[in-house]
Amino acid sequence: MYRKELKVLDCTIRDGGLINNYHFTTDFVKAVYRAACDSGVDYVELGKKLEVSDVYTREKYGPWNFCDDDDLKQVVDSHECDNPPEVAVMFDVGRVNVSKLQARDLSPMGMIRTACYVHDIDKGIDLTKRSKDLGYETTINVMAASASIETELVEGLEELNNCDELDWLYLVDSYGAFYSEQITYYLNLYKKYAPNKQLGFHAHNNQQLAFSNTQQAIIDGVNLLDATINGIGRGAGNCNLELLLNFLKNPKFDVLPLYKVIQEQFVPLREQIEWGFNDIYGISGHLNQHPREAMKQRANQDKRDLCYDFYLSCADMDNPVGS
Amino acid sequence: MYRKELKVLDCTIRDGGLINNYHFTTDFVKAVYRAACDSGVDYVELGKKLEVSDVYTREKYGPWNFCDDDDLKQVVDSHECDNPPEVAVMFDVGRVNVSKLQARDLSPMGMIRTACYVHDIDKGIDLTKRSKDLGYETTINVMAASASIETELVEGLEELNNCDELDWLYLVDSYGAFYSEQITYYLNLYKKYAPNKQLGFHAHNNQQLAFSNTQQAIIDGVNLLDATINGIGRGAGNCNLELLLNFLKNPKFDVLPLYKVIQEQFVPLREQIEWGFNDIYGISGHLNQHPREAMKQRANQDKRDLCYDFYLSCADMDNPVGS
Repeated sequence: MYRKELKVLDCTIRDGGLINNYHFTTDFVKAVYRAACDSGVDYVELGKKLEVSDVYTREKYGPWNFCDDDDLKQVVDSHECDNPPEVAVMFDVGRVNVSKLQARDLSPMGMIRTACYVHDIDKGIDLTKRSKDLGYETTINVMAASASIETELVEGLEELNNCDELDWLYLVDSYGAFYSEQITYYLNLYKKYAPNKQLGFHAHNNQQLAFSNTQQAIIDGVNLLDATINGIGRGAGNCNLELLLNFLKNPKFDVLPLYKVIQEQFVPLREQIEWGFNDIYGISGHLNQHPREAMKQRANQDKRDLCYDFYLSCADMDNPVGS
Repeated sequence: MYRKELKVLDCTIRDGGLINNYHFTTDFVKAVYRAACDSGVDYVELGKKLEVSDVYTREKYGPWNFCDDDDLKQVVDSHECDNPPEVAVMFDVGRVNVSKLQARDLSPMGMIRTACYVHDIDKGIDLTKRSKDLGYETTINVMAASASIETELVEGLEELNNCDELDWLYLVDSYGAFYSEQITYYLNLYKKYAPNKQLGFHAHNNQQLAFSNTQQAIIDGVNLLDATINGIGRGAGNCNLELLLNFLKNPKFDVLPLYKVIQEQFVPLREQIEWGFNDIYGISGHLNQHPREAMKQRANQDKRDLCYDFYLSCADMDNPVGS
């Protein structure tokens, strides 16, 4: 598949940070940045940009939950690159302070992505407008489309379509619940109700479909693709960036720096934290559930592999007596 | 996806046996058979049916490489089932003795699958004719289509189309090299040059695409689907049967017995033998290589995770100096 409009966003640190509370070492983040640069990806997302508070401290929640300019600068300055990727950070609705945001010209960041559920789209639009006013490229990542009520989603898409400050509109398979036919169905909704917008896609690998669904999204016209090195990410993880670059034929991409950083950094990391497909996440994705119960099960050493028990408990939750 | 013609073949023991030289315990095989019965799959393949010799002994190569009638009967008799799956075994061209085969009526088997490369299709047809003469349902599984020369494949398909004794013709992604667009391409060849044949598909998971490619095969008209419990199988393994049954909406299938046997039998087995996607197999699949080099790398404790080194070594093999 070669289409020159296709762009790739590495969200290794941002989605991977959901596993370890953004406690990556600076050296690790630098290694990922370097690999992202050398692989030729278009964007690299280095974390979230949340507001520090007495509860949300850098010590407890890790520097890459906050991404101060100094955090980002030390990473960006650590590797020279002819054509570096644009640095992205993510906003969570309700946990950011836009008034402290510097203008794009003064900042190491180029893109601000706002993650929101369907019911928070108006808040997402507000953050997006204010980010664009400061010069940033913008995305809105509408989470958990698979669990939304379609009329609400459609209403949101129409609003997003009219938000001139929004550059990219994302379909996000937060629960890893979609089959390819549903990718097509939802993207058709996006194209129908938000025809002005360029589209992005963010997968999860609960059913071993993150990579193939990303391919389906390409077929259906999506031009901004999220992926992570080694598929790292919450729960079952994401689309593997190295598999995706293997698939994309654009000569600007080079997969070797990714395998290098996997060998040097991710293999040791896999000894400390877990990500990727397993039976528990497969069930959670099939049942279109938020991954929190599955993550809890995996975190319990005695229960982590009890997929049959997990299926039974989920089925009970879905089918209480009475209705 | 619900289509009443769709049939599912569990090849857990046969493809899984490639990892451990068919040394599954009888209790394990019985547990798999029971799960296959209770899950409602249409066929269960319990091994290969090769000829014992001084070199190929049951002791060294495991009973499920040979599948004597007594081996099969003790399994089939171990679980009562209203509508049991047909028992299948696999022939390898050049390593079987059809003259010893009993007639279908006297045998615990119902289906004989012959695996062959494109250049051995004539031999495969001979075995198939002789199996059909004895009353068996037959398949030919044409291996490594991704590495075949297309004119040879087409010639083979035309011959297979004219073999009245062949019930099912398989596309096999032996190297885990196909993307969905290639599934469609090859199945179009199959439909064009073997229009008389019902089609089957057998995937490998090198690029995390076994399940999604099986879905694509369904879309493209395949009605016999191979899968294995927990995705067990050589190298990166196969399409996970439990994911596939989750996807298929036919009420005759029940996924719970599969998760039960995974929890009770496969979780402990995973401590002893390895299968499933990893970086090494991802590279091997992308480069359309036989998995033997990848399996060798994974078997080397010092090198098993050195994916960057593996990529470099593969690239050298593919691109020697000169041409």
